Amino acid sequence: MKSDLDRLMAERGFAALLVIGEVEGNHALRYLTNSARITHGTVLKVAGQPPLIVANAMERDEAAKSGLQVVTTAELGYHEIIRRTSNLLETDAELLAALLTRYGVSGTVSVYGVSDPGRAYLLLGRLDALLPEVTITGEGDTTIFDEAYATKDAAELAAMRSAAERTNAVMGEVVGFIRGHRVSEGQLAAEDGCPLTVADVKRYLQERLMAAGLEDNGETIFAIGRDGGVPHSRGEDSDVLTVGACIVFDLFPRDRASGYYHDMTRTYCLGEASPEVERAYRQVMQAFDAVSDALAVGQPGSRYQDITCDVFEEHGHPTPRTHPGTEVGYVHNLGHGVGLQIHARPRLSAFSPDTLQPGQVFTVEPGLYYPDDGYGVRIEDTVMIDADGTFHSLTPYPKDLVIPLG
Amino acid sequence: MKSDLDRLMAERGFAALLVIGEVEGNHALRYLTNSARITHGTVLKVAGQPPLIVANAMERDEAAKSGLQVVTTAELGYHEIIRRTSNLLETDAELLAALLTRYGVSGTVSVYGVSDPGRAYLLLGRLDALLPEVTITGEGDTTIFDEAYATKDAAELAAMRSAAERTNAVMGEVVGFIRGHRVSEGQLAAEDGCPLTVADVKRYLQERLMAAGLEDNGETIFAIGRDGGVPHSRGEDSDVLTVGACIVFDLFPRDRASGYYHDMTRTYCLGEASPEVERAYRQVMQAFDAVSDALAVGQPGSRYQDITCDVFEEHGHPTPRTHPGTEVGYVHNLGHGVGLQIHARPRLSAFSPDTLQPGQVFTVEPGLYYPDDGYGVRIEDTVMIDADGTFHSLTPYPKDLVIPLG
Repeated sequence: MKSDLDRLMAERGFAALLVIGEVEGNHALRYLTNSARITHGTVLKVAGQPPLIVANAMERDEAAKSGLQVVTTAELGYHEIIRRTSNLLETDAELLAALLTRYGVSGTVSVYGVSDPGRAYLLLGRLDALLPEVTITGEGDTTIFDEAYATKDAAELAAMRSAAERTNAVMGEVVGFIRGHRVSEGQLAAEDGCPLTVADVKRYLQERLMAAGLEDNGETIFAIGRDGGVPHSRGEDSDVLTVGACIVFDLFPRDRASGYYHDMTRTYCLGEASPEVERAYRQVMQAFDAVSDALAVGQPGSRYQDITCDVFEEHGHPTPRTHPGTEVGYVHNLGHGVGLQIHARPRLSAFSPDTLQPGQVFTVEPGLYYPDDGYGVRIEDTVMIDADGTFHSLTPYPKDLVIPLG
Repeated sequence: MKSDLDRLMAERGFAALLVIGEVEGNHALRYLTNSARITHGTVLKVAGQPPLIVANAMERDEAAKSGLQVVTTAELGYHEIIRRTSNLLETDAELLAALLTRYGVSGTVSVYGVSDPGRAYLLLGRLDALLPEVTITGEGDTTIFDEAYATKDAAELAAMRSAAERTNAVMGEVVGFIRGHRVSEGQLAAEDGCPLTVADVKRYLQERLMAAGLEDNGETIFAIGRDGGVPHSRGEDSDVLTVGACIVFDLFPRDRASGYYHDMTRTYCLGEASPEVERAYRQVMQAFDAVSDALAVGQPGSRYQDITCDVFEEHGHPTPRTHPGTEVGYVHNLGHGVGLQIHARPRLSAFSPDTLQPGQVFTVEPGLYYPDDGYGVRIEDTVMIDADGTFHSLTPYPKDLVIPLG
């Protein structure tokens, strides 16, 4: 949680955290600025002090809405700096140096955010050289933010519950939209007789997401047949929804207001399922239930990947444990944390360093993939562990395989 | 243009370009992968060879849609690497080293994309240390991509024209939506008698953007009164549209399919304009026209910032030239290139290193800001220079100040 940052900084020996860059995709900046609607910014958090934000004059009003103290670039001597530097990289390095100097930072400063990696390599090298009393570093794995994010406070859990409810509702609306079409010569068709395509479904989905205050950046997976057998294929817009088709529908929108994600997958067969898909679905549900039954605070995340592999191997499927790099059978990890990032801690995977803890929110998403047989099956809920250690699915939407057609 | 990359690499002494990270906000990755719908990726472009893309098995199908040669992480020895490395940063560094080694790269490799800056600082330092025959670098200012982006080829110009037409149409739809409301006690009101708010306008705008295949990430500026006087304030959702209110409406959506932006601003007074706002509007249009008349291939971008300051200073307004850091009068630069980034080369600003060239697309956006007097005025078109050096506005939408009310 946010309130853990000072303790985590002390544990890691960080005198300050520096978060830079554009807001787009910058979860650390969003986290520290309480989702203020700035486009970019620099936030400094000195150990034991609340974070403060650097903004140019044009963004001062929006920056102030973060609730953070605002320091303007002018106050940091921007106009003097720009005169004595010869390029933007130097200007930026000098401006960051002025910020750290103004707030008396010495020791290790760890940097986060979003930027061009090559530029960051040069910029931070230069910043490090400008300030002899400061050592610039970063974190490659399990950052301080990853640790803080991994457990959510009450405000974050409320935001995630709200995003979950709306995402479940949109899933239901889309299923209802599909059911509202009639069957004509083995295809679903609209009133005007035109066949219903993936593009039509995604267009309707966009409308419903928008109405619900959610956004998916066009990344929702609605993949039919072979595409559903390739886990991250998003589906072909021109594909027609035909009777018996098997669809993997993975919906993971972000709440526009809060920035938090929900993540859920359902697999649907239209009107009827083949015996092969039905069997795969039952096995996926068996893995899902075996994992759900075993969820317990304190257990390692890797345990649940093992349970899933146990179930699938028992049925004769290749898994990453028996066939590393397999592209058929069970081909991925079981789950991942969800929050301001769609993929966060804890990880439910073979090499996960995480254990389950109160305040965590993560996915459980076993699947089986046979692209050459024309199908994939995945079922995914997002699960929350509340403060007293109880597990709740945030994805109560039904898991039926077949969408009945009229 | 894309076809300039080999020449630019030779000029800068780069043996290879490496583009890494998430796709979100990663224009270089989007550029080289022809907007394939992957979520993240690594692209290597060796001098004189077409770029190739690294993808994991799960993303291979989407990656192949880029038209690039695909190399899988398995082919790079991922499963062996993950066994001998102890954290993700090491794994990633080893994987990049394996990629560069596989394709025989030696010399200077410049890195681009999107990543956490602190992590990039560590990762690229490690990669550099792993490969004695390779020097890792980046670019801080005017990257090779900035140079390539600055002029567009025919396919890019066509994409930008299409985005422009749809953005102009949406501007017209929103103005029509506002005009479709009646006046009641000095406020615009809907059929049900409720006052029309900024939130209502933005909701309608979202619908129209979506229908047009455009997206704005909620960043459109629709700022009334004082908010319009603070250039990057996006406006208050709860503000009511009142007769006489002055609105800065800055619309800069991205075409979902191509990734290209359009950028336009109109300033509107509802029903009537105060003499003060009308005067500011005439002065802004005077600056706009003076710049438009002076646009010529070969001229420095800084010239147009000077022309704008000349006009505004003549009328007694503070400018960045007379009052560096001013927050009233003319407070920003005149314009910026537009493409896969909303802010690109060329820059039309005091310290711009750019000159105007065929194939460029950029904004012209003079403005005057008096927040304490309750207004700002900005007028912005996006201008294209075609291959034969002719200038065309991509923003033909009318620039009338007053929206007549019924």
